[in-house]
Amino acid sequence: MSEASGLGRMRQVLEWGECDPAGIIYYPTYYRWMDSATWALVAAAGYPASRMREEHFTMPLVDSQCAFLSSPTFGDECEVRSRVSKWGRTSFTVSHEVVLAADGRVLARGSESRVWCRYEAGPGSPLRAEPMPAALRTALGG
Amino acid sequence: MSEASGLGRMRQVLEWGECDPAGIIYYPTYYRWMDSATWALVAAAGYPASRMREEHFTMPLVDSQCAFLSSPTFGDECEVRSRVSKWGRTSFTVSHEVVLAADGRVLARGSESRVWCRYEAGPGSPLRAEPMPAALRTALGG
Amino acid sequence: MSEASGLGRMRQVLEWGECDPAGIIYYPTYYRWMDSATWALVAAAGYPASRMREEHFTMPLVDSQCAFLSSPTFGDECEVRSRVSKWGRTSFTVSHEVVLAADGRVLARGSESRVWCRYEAGPGSPLRAEPMPAALRTALGG
Amino acid sequence: MSEASGLGRMRQVLEWGECDPAGIIYYPTYYRWMDSATWALVAAAGYPASRMREEHFTMPLVDSQCAFLSSPTFGDECEVRSRVSKWGRTSFTVSHEVVLAADGRVLARGSESRVWCRYEAGPGSPLRAEPMPAALRTALGG
Repeated sequence: MSEASGLGRMRQVLEWGECDPAGIIYYPTYYRWMDSATWALVAAAGYPASRMREEHFTMPLVDSQCAFLSSPTFGDECEVRSRVSKWGRTSFTVSHEVVLAADGRVLARGSESRVWCRYEAGPGSPLRAEPMPAALRTALGG
Repeated sequence: MSEASGLGRMRQVLEWGECDPAGIIYYPTYYRWMDSATWALVAAAGYPASRMREEHFTMPLVDSQCAFLSSPTFGDECEVRSRVSKWGRTSFTVSHEVVLAADGRVLARGSESRVWCRYEAGPGSPLRAEPMPAALRTALGG
Repeated sequence: MSEASGLGRMRQVLEWGECDPAGIIYYPTYYRWMDSATWALVAAAGYPASRMREEHFTMPLVDSQCAFLSSPTFGDECEVRSRVSKWGRTSFTVSHEVVLAADGRVLARGSESRVWCRYEAGPGSPLRAEPMPAALRTALGG
Repeated sequence: MSEASGLGRMRQVLEWGECDPAGIIYYPTYYRWMDSATWALVAAAGYPASRMREEHFTMPLVDSQCAFLSSPTFGDECEVRSRVSKWGRTSFTVSHEVVLAADGRVLARGSESRVWCRYEAGPGSPLRAEPMPAALRTALGG
């Protein structure tokens, strides 16, 4: 295990349809943002969607969690700051902090535990856990 | 072309996260419901998800539209009534009417034009349009 | 603190649009289901959406988490089993277990920590935490 | 009626959770994008979410439609190009074209008919249709 240094930043404007009748963020939206932020983090580190597909990689979830500290409302510009915070042999944890872009106020803190996997025989075939490619792990600070 | 008689009925409670800050249905929700209702209609006519997958069938969209007449609010029980309203050789149109379960008030009227297709060489391979299986078309009133 | 006995059960067919390109459930869908299951649990205990609105009640989230054990695919019928598992003065935790309806296999286990709140001066006004109505708490096994 | 000249452009990367098991865009996603693009268009013309709220404006839908020409896959960068294409007294139509950012290929063409409205007595109160503020209409090319 080691700590990561590669930091991802993704902007998200809170959309009309991402709010609930209370006028604030509908909480599963944070998990959608975290999922998108992880894919963007991995893409920025050399593995965009196209390469993930070609090399038959994917990264299923083991668990996820999020604490909700303050709620953005419709139109608020937010930033999701993400980094790999824990490394196992094939598993890894991505920590996310969602802040309000205007003043940096922390809105939510969450994490996702994932496993790096390869489809044994192409898309749709069974998955086998394996260590992340070394270059990718390095780029992610591991 | 002919008119269909097979009618599908699907209940949908309007969920908290399907509403917008105005407290009414977020309009893309209707399209999600119509998509689900079409899959349910085809399932009830003998082609559930598992069979669609096994026989490499899918039914991509050509276009869709919806008119919004009255807006349900959080917790309202709705019913989506669906039937194939137009038949081409490989294309078909599904018409949907969304009503309030309590009093039958019409909330929305929409439709989807789709093409019946088969993956030429299994999932992910190119699609080829072909006529719907005869038994399915009959079950759908065509 | 005490343990709850009131159990909620909500059926959910995994829809086409709730899956991801891997053909399995897109994980934020579990959180959408848990949110819906909590509202349904409270509704069944005497506080449907309409009453929540009239009496200016809501129940914002403090945090949530979920462990993903097995993944349903498109068309699978699932059941979300929910109950309040922990009671504070104004806070409470709802535990959810998602199982495959066909064989009871556990797909996911999650929880939500919430606070019972009232809008001080009607919808949109500031929230004040307060104890849940006694009859509701009893109906939920608290 | 007149034709509009104010053009909005909004980038959207097709996210993992916006795709379906066929690996392409889940079609209701287009409607979510069109809704977001309309709010962004109006924001850019001087009426961001905060001002819409303060002045009690909203713009409910009358109907919407979309034709699907080509399907983006996970990770594709898209652009939604939007403009008001038709003007009534209180109603207006926003036309949207979704293109692939890489080569400009048209993916979808859709439209939304909306009515400009004001909450008579603040949020949640009944809506009354009224002409759009003149400065906004001008900024939108009307």
